[in-house]
Amino acid sequence: MSFSMYSASIPVFKQILGSLHAILVKAEAHVEDKKLDPNALLQFRLFPDMLPFTRQIQIAADFAKGAGARLAGQDVPAYEDTEKTLAELKLRITRTLTFLDSLPQDAIDGSEERAITTGSGEKTKHFVGQTYLLHYALPHFFFHATTAYDILRHNGLDIGKKDFIGSY
Amino acid sequence: MSFSMYSASIPVFKQILGSLHAILVKAEAHVEDKKLDPNALLQFRLFPDMLPFTRQIQIAADFAKGAGARLAGQDVPAYEDTEKTLAELKLRITRTLTFLDSLPQDAIDGSEERAITTGSGEKTKHFVGQTYLLHYALPHFFFHATTAYDILRHNGLDIGKKDFIGSY
Repeated sequence: MSFSMYSASIPVFKQILGSLHAILVKAEAHVEDKKLDPNALLQFRLFPDMLPFTRQIQIAADFAKGAGARLAGQDVPAYEDTEKTLAELKLRITRTLTFLDSLPQDAIDGSEERAITTGSGEKTKHFVGQTYLLHYALPHFFFHATTAYDILRHNGLDIGKKDFIGSY
Repeated sequence: MSFSMYSASIPVFKQILGSLHAILVKAEAHVEDKKLDPNALLQFRLFPDMLPFTRQIQIAADFAKGAGARLAGQDVPAYEDTEKTLAELKLRITRTLTFLDSLPQDAIDGSEERAITTGSGEKTKHFVGQTYLLHYALPHFFFHATTAYDILRHNGLDIGKKDFIGSY
């Protein structure tokens, strides 16, 4: 695959979302093995004013969805944040992966200079596609994906960096 | 700046390394204000078999240095892992930033298909430049940078995601 806005976005999001899905499978087994309260994991925060695990997964998935849609020139589909279980978080990820697979490569390639707007009101931000992807969407995506991993590691899940990097 | 191997690598590494440097400045003030033992932060791990804060910073910086050098077709300069203070970790980052600034853009642009080898012995990995950057170096870099941030947040440093995203 040649180097392009598509190759720098969708396959990277898919790699790490695939890792998060596999890590959630391991988290489910961990909860069962250790007879943990799954909500203790789902609601765990590394500090009281940080977001809990569930939100980290939802937001990571949403940065992938939002970036894919915006770079392709599509409206961003809204997914409600209703997940209450690890199984539902896995579905959030598979739903996001299916959406990313639906995006045509040729709509994203060439989006370097596409005008991208995020947020609303005082939080409105204006970008061109390249800046949005490289300096905003990817850093935010990795930030939430890694923090989700760190929460699970902090709670004793037996995973390593290989699980985070995953397959590519 | 047009979309290229250079734009997808060096400016991204510089953005987040700049953030980590600014966060280290805040960590120094936090240690002083709260009369903390700085080694308690420097050696803090989110789980006993995870790497401590100092190593997270060193490794994040090394992924930036290694990626920049390899994509430019240069030998990777070796920096010893001798930092014992927050001030020394700041120097590690500024040294890395200076190195990244020394890399000619035209040596990195066009490196999509450059053969890249990392590790040695059983850990040897072979990549082409594009795969190495997007699926290996950037994910590892963000993984360690975010984990460094998460360690400081977990220890009460008053920073937020804006500090991580930084300036771009």
